[in-house]
Amino acid sequence: MPGPVQSIERAAAILRLLARGSGRLGVGEIATSLGLAKGTAHGILRTLQGVGFVEQDRASGKYQLGATLLHLGTSYLDVNDLRSRAINWADALAARSGEAVRIGTPLDGKVLVVHHVFRPDDSLQTLDVGSLLPLHATALGKVLLAYDADVASQLKDDDLAWFTRRTLVTAEALSRSVARVRELGWAAEVEEFATGLASIAAPIRGYGGLVVGAISIAGAVERVCPVARRADPGLVAFVQNAARAISRDLGAGRW
Amino acid sequence: MPGPVQSIERAAAILRLLARGSGRLGVGEIATSLGLAKGTAHGILRTLQGVGFVEQDRASGKYQLGATLLHLGTSYLDVNDLRSRAINWADALAARSGEAVRIGTPLDGKVLVVHHVFRPDDSLQTLDVGSLLPLHATALGKVLLAYDADVASQLKDDDLAWFTRRTLVTAEALSRSVARVRELGWAAEVEEFATGLASIAAPIRGYGGLVVGAISIAGAVERVCPVARRADPGLVAFVQNAARAISRDLGAGRW
Repeated sequence: MPGPVQSIERAAAILRLLARGSGRLGVGEIATSLGLAKGTAHGILRTLQGVGFVEQDRASGKYQLGATLLHLGTSYLDVNDLRSRAINWADALAARSGEAVRIGTPLDGKVLVVHHVFRPDDSLQTLDVGSLLPLHATALGKVLLAYDADVASQLKDDDLAWFTRRTLVTAEALSRSVARVRELGWAAEVEEFATGLASIAAPIRGYGGLVVGAISIAGAVERVCPVARRADPGLVAFVQNAARAISRDLGAGRW
Repeated sequence: MPGPVQSIERAAAILRLLARGSGRLGVGEIATSLGLAKGTAHGILRTLQGVGFVEQDRASGKYQLGATLLHLGTSYLDVNDLRSRAINWADALAARSGEAVRIGTPLDGKVLVVHHVFRPDDSLQTLDVGSLLPLHATALGKVLLAYDADVASQLKDDDLAWFTRRTLVTAEALSRSVARVRELGWAAEVEEFATGLASIAAPIRGYGGLVVGAISIAGAVERVCPVARRADPGLVAFVQNAARAISRDLGAGRW
């Protein structure tokens, strides 16, 4: 079995670097950040520019991500089984619950949002597809931590950042919360990610019963957790039913 | 100046191949399509899998695009100056015109949609961001053909596919239409892409006055071209004003 191709790994590292922070970096900054010789970084950047994966700003000479990546990202969504099987169920869940619905899958120790249905009202909402949410502070993330050992092993103590005063920032507190998710079969998060908001999530299983993602509803605490800050049982049932229906469509069988 | 890095170019070619058609290919199909030895294709695919750019389907062993690309694509949008400067103007244009608004930029001989505002009504609409539209059959594309020599040089006669019986499928007809765009300063397309629909677009200029994209409205022919199948002058003015405002924000100066 051949080893990984070093120049491709370096190219991927440059693209990931450009996806962080300000999004625009000079060749010197890129070389320093990744411990590459400037000539090596320049050769990779020129190649990435040639294939449309990076663009160079005319005025500053700095590099940024290129338009081809947007098209590839959209193409990923087109072939993503989880998303395509989930779209109709997500719409129905938003309509029934009256709340925003998200579908997430693990990526690099975070939750990648692959589908987002707006709360069915006239409020201004921003599409979240493609953004990364924290594992420890969202119901989607707790489900992935509870059922995917790979995901759980990737989470480091340093990742437990504060978002609100209720965020679980110790490994012990998070571990208790995740154990509870396994007991119940669903996860809730009440003002742990954003003040005033709560979310409920359940696991989506794919072929062979493996958890491949999670589906959640999120909304105002007073609607999602109307009594004693506990998740509304009716809403929990809606989320679990949607998760089961998607899992069935993905070939999970009975579990 | 060093030459391009071959393995990165090959990796990019594999990703582009996976973005087409069914989206799932075996290593043999990929090797054959790109004229690579199977071992070479396999080494690149394993590396791409390691960095999250491709995923392998457990059941079939076939490869498809990976989740990291969705995150990179979204990050591209976050740093995209054209899109970020245009968002507010696009919302205003949709509200004023009552039609769907798109912003496009050239990519690989097509128009890449980088922003899309739904028509402000309750009809079911699908988000187009990240999709590629044909240059010759859309108002957005005609604007790019009229003002960007690079784009015009990439268009081959083979690209002039039929979409409706009104699509311009000869180089002569398209050339006349594009010359008219240069005269007027805006483009229209009436049922050339989809029956019953028409669109109007104007150029967006960036730093130094170069055309970096186009903004369009699209909607039913009877609304967009109510008299004698000609673009409504009021709507044309709305589109041109939006394009000028975005260009000013991008530092195009007076032109």
